[in-house]
Amino acid sequence: MTTRADCASRDADDPVRSLRDNFTLDDSVIYMDGNSLGPMARQSREHVLRALDTEWAQGLVGSWNTSQWMDSPMILGDRLAPLIGAQPGEVLIADTITMMLAKLVGASLNFQSGRHVVLTDETNFHSDLYILDGVARFANRNIEVRRIDRYLLEEYLSEDVALVEFSHVDFRTGEMLDLHEITARVHDVGALMLWDLAHSAGAVPVDVTSADVDLAVGCTYKFLNAGPGSPGFCYIRGSLQDRLDNPLPGWLGHARPFDFDPDYVAAAGIRAFQTSTPPIIAMAALKGSLDVFEQTTMSELRDKSLALSTLFMDLVEERLSDHDIEVVTPREPFRRGSHVSLQVEGAYGVVQALIERGVIGDFRALEIARFGLTPLTLRFVDVFDAVDQLVQVLDGGEHLDPRFDHRNQVT
Amino acid sequence: MTTRADCASRDADDPVRSLRDNFTLDDSVIYMDGNSLGPMARQSREHVLRALDTEWAQGLVGSWNTSQWMDSPMILGDRLAPLIGAQPGEVLIADTITMMLAKLVGASLNFQSGRHVVLTDETNFHSDLYILDGVARFANRNIEVRRIDRYLLEEYLSEDVALVEFSHVDFRTGEMLDLHEITARVHDVGALMLWDLAHSAGAVPVDVTSADVDLAVGCTYKFLNAGPGSPGFCYIRGSLQDRLDNPLPGWLGHARPFDFDPDYVAAAGIRAFQTSTPPIIAMAALKGSLDVFEQTTMSELRDKSLALSTLFMDLVEERLSDHDIEVVTPREPFRRGSHVSLQVEGAYGVVQALIERGVIGDFRALEIARFGLTPLTLRFVDVFDAVDQLVQVLDGGEHLDPRFDHRNQVT
Repeated sequence: MTTRADCASRDADDPVRSLRDNFTLDDSVIYMDGNSLGPMARQSREHVLRALDTEWAQGLVGSWNTSQWMDSPMILGDRLAPLIGAQPGEVLIADTITMMLAKLVGASLNFQSGRHVVLTDETNFHSDLYILDGVARFANRNIEVRRIDRYLLEEYLSEDVALVEFSHVDFRTGEMLDLHEITARVHDVGALMLWDLAHSAGAVPVDVTSADVDLAVGCTYKFLNAGPGSPGFCYIRGSLQDRLDNPLPGWLGHARPFDFDPDYVAAAGIRAFQTSTPPIIAMAALKGSLDVFEQTTMSELRDKSLALSTLFMDLVEERLSDHDIEVVTPREPFRRGSHVSLQVEGAYGVVQALIERGVIGDFRALEIARFGLTPLTLRFVDVFDAVDQLVQVLDGGEHLDPRFDHRNQVT
Repeated sequence: MTTRADCASRDADDPVRSLRDNFTLDDSVIYMDGNSLGPMARQSREHVLRALDTEWAQGLVGSWNTSQWMDSPMILGDRLAPLIGAQPGEVLIADTITMMLAKLVGASLNFQSGRHVVLTDETNFHSDLYILDGVARFANRNIEVRRIDRYLLEEYLSEDVALVEFSHVDFRTGEMLDLHEITARVHDVGALMLWDLAHSAGAVPVDVTSADVDLAVGCTYKFLNAGPGSPGFCYIRGSLQDRLDNPLPGWLGHARPFDFDPDYVAAAGIRAFQTSTPPIIAMAALKGSLDVFEQTTMSELRDKSLALSTLFMDLVEERLSDHDIEVVTPREPFRRGSHVSLQVEGAYGVVQALIERGVIGDFRALEIARFGLTPLTLRFVDVFDAVDQLVQVLDGGEHLDPRFDHRNQVT
């Protein structure tokens, strides 16, 4: 049996253990929901305060120039790029992940005007499903969005397919798909591949360049720790950028915004996918979170993430074998992201009872309790203690308390 | 001639003079660009710090519930509503002004599916022009966007018109249009009226209810002082809300987001126009700015704004009659917003030379120097001093300095 002392000793040997010191986490809480909302780095607070006091309050409108506000969506995009294997000039911070999806799907449909099928995963995150349907309907040319079993992708690929949109890591199960293999198969039929990296950016190493990915979107509030409702990002492969048009154009994507040209002329490169004024205060928090990522590498973080998730799954299996609980996240390291999901009856109650005990995970219908293994902040002893609390909840039947009605769910 | 002492005496009598104390403005600067980026209220800083330290860092993901993050786009919308004469439940804070325009224009085109013309003002703000063209093109059913001379609107109104989109206050000249009259004429032919309130929300009293306005959008970073790149808002008349569909739907506009329903079912009311996770940190600054607006009324602010702009125009005419400079903002109070524009050769140089002298306005091509008269912060003596500096700039020909090349313009 794995002991707490074993875990403490692994913490002592952990090469990235000091990264936790960047965060303002309370030691009385074991935070395993960084996959939903990442914790706050001290640097994020500092950058936000600088944006408020120095840039906004003192610098006023001049900061668009003197504090590089105008170029910040591209500057921060370039800093985020290495986390997903993108090149400089291929990542833009703007809008929200779903609005970014709308732009990229719309642009792809126009680009692939001879094709009328979009494929997506029937178990994809719901915003992805909704926005694909919405954009396809709005494009008003009989676009068919097919929600498919992702394991049967090959059967659906044809010359009719304009675009395939999948999530790289499944929000519910934590399964990670094969970025390289799927992208290659999609390219075989001349379709574009658009990856949703919401649960992979900052969570697992991603290499959009070697996988030849066309398009990707992500959010920055999960594993990227940029704060509640922080902006989305998009990646567009360099060689595609002058062939795709932003279907929702605005003045900040114009080649010369201050000419106030009656005709829209797209800026060169990814800037053209900007529409509106960038969210400066929100992006300041992202700066701080990137400061932390720049202290390490995704490879180093991945090693720890896998060690944490392996430990978590091992402990669940060691200590909860007499309960009806199942690890639904794949055991093979290359098939999982950085969160682990447990299927258990009364999962909502399990999560709520754990929260009352200071272990924060989250619930996803039906009957999934989700636990994020954020290597920047989580310790091996935290994983041990979390499973210990889980054992007590299940042994005591605390999760069956009628107070825990999942119809009350807010997050 | 108006003297500085006259102005000081008007400040002493100003019933809203103490509102300036809410802001962190440096006395060495005369800030007349609140029409581009409003100044920071101390309350905004406090709310952002609370959002960071208490809500995010301590409350973590639980704050979606305990700090009302989930409902904040509607809660803050209800607080903004009185500034534009809207009712509770008619205003939503989300996205950016241009993305909000995309949603409302798309929804209107679907709603008015038997009509194929959209009218807009040929001198409208460029993001409006670009997004109207973009959405119309994307809708792919021969929508014709006609850019018209707004004074000739009657000539273009017909049963073919689906939607008219105008800016209430002209970003360049400061002219304010007749909200009631134009909305009524547009309704006469069964078209929807969508107003861009970017330069009127927080600047002038607006009454969308009595004018029977259908739709409106706005931004919160200008006269609403919510910080650089703060979110947009939309207004949808209550009686229209269940007849318009968000063309860019996302999970947070679903009636029950946490059911993870494969089918999109729109939430009741304006919430359906939400797509993605709300920008909590950015919205915290808006809370603070609304705290300030709630200390006064738009009517009281309007009185001061008109007094300031009248003074500014009078002083320009009194003291600069021997220069080739023209006030392009209408003299009639009911025909202007809360900024005044001067047409002068070398306007970019005029603005830059004034900035070097501590008077901050901005430049808009061609040859317009723009000055915001923000009644929350600006004093009568500031207006006097600003014109005094302007006299010195023009008398000395400082604006003709070759350093001031408007091709360097960033804001």
